[in-house]
Amino acid sequence: MRGRFLVLEGVDGSGKTTQARRLVQYLTDQGRRPLHLREPGGTALGEKLRRLLLEPGREEWHWSSEALLFFAARRELLTTQVAPALAAGRDVLCERFSASTLAYQGHGPDAAEFILALDALVVADRQPDQVLILDLDPLESLERAGQRGLFDSFEARGLAFLNKVREGYRRYAEARPQNTRIIDVSGLSPDAVQLRLIEALETLPT
Amino acid sequence: MRGRFLVLEGVDGSGKTTQARRLVQYLTDQGRRPLHLREPGGTALGEKLRRLLLEPGREEWHWSSEALLFFAARRELLTTQVAPALAAGRDVLCERFSASTLAYQGHGPDAAEFILALDALVVADRQPDQVLILDLDPLESLERAGQRGLFDSFEARGLAFLNKVREGYRRYAEARPQNTRIIDVSGLSPDAVQLRLIEALETLPT
Repeated sequence: MRGRFLVLEGVDGSGKTTQARRLVQYLTDQGRRPLHLREPGGTALGEKLRRLLLEPGREEWHWSSEALLFFAARRELLTTQVAPALAAGRDVLCERFSASTLAYQGHGPDAAEFILALDALVVADRQPDQVLILDLDPLESLERAGQRGLFDSFEARGLAFLNKVREGYRRYAEARPQNTRIIDVSGLSPDAVQLRLIEALETLPT
Repeated sequence: MRGRFLVLEGVDGSGKTTQARRLVQYLTDQGRRPLHLREPGGTALGEKLRRLLLEPGREEWHWSSEALLFFAARRELLTTQVAPALAAGRDVLCERFSASTLAYQGHGPDAAEFILALDALVVADRQPDQVLILDLDPLESLERAGQRGLFDSFEARGLAFLNKVREGYRRYAEARPQNTRIIDVSGLSPDAVQLRLIEALETLPT
């Protein structure tokens, strides 16, 4: 059995974590021994960088330096977690990956080009088999975040920011059409979203 | 007056800091208002990464993730310090830059290619006008380090490691012949080294 590298993307409140847990169960039931990862983190270096990114002062860093930090954590995750799991025939399901960097750090002029070039160099031939982007109407996203008390440093920047993030995700999907799907989850129940994700996974080679 | 981006490279004990101070004085006497920088560091993010790189655990990180951390610090230094100083007509003199990453992190298979590609993307068209590598015979380097009680995590790895570092510096010089010079400082006094460096700088366009 060949391991598959699966990525779940989307803003906070889009249902990534809930859906990831359900997919892990689904894949486990299929006997695929999935490894569930989350970015940034999942390695000693990744956790250090996660803490660094949560400290005050981040807003002063250049977007490109911040992108490089995410790619440092990503490279560590790839070499120490993802590659060995795939080699052992396990599926890997990762919450957030390169599409998040494009969506959140890719707003400046030439930023998208820089991040896609960095991705081509750093992720190289370890690109995900499938990237599933949970696409949520920004108004619904703000509503959900409010209900959950979930206003982190990103989402607190409001509607204009969420629209840019959405545009970044679309840009990623356009650049990587062969392995990326945008799943519209606006107004859908978790059960309905799960069905769409499983449908997407079932078209992948096993 | 056009600002020039100058880099001083070499192992610990090769005389970088002594020579950098002297060059800063020389450039100041010429009315060039030099900005003296040191990698990693020189920015809020760079100092955080410098501390991270000094914490225990680093030896477990993949060389490529570590290289990405250095390039994150480098990108921040370029955008927030180097570029504005050059734009203001100041010379910039930086101790260590991309050649150090190739010399210290570039030992694995394909490592040099990865680091040179990363440099082409991250440093892009802000390459130094001149990189001066202080090349020291590894035996003399160990002797000097011993005299100064200077056995940091790198140099303590001994002669085999210092030979690889030297090879990495040479590799960088081969890849960037247009702006890189190797200055043999073995057996030379600080005064003699200074003369060679000034000689090299005087061939640059002002």
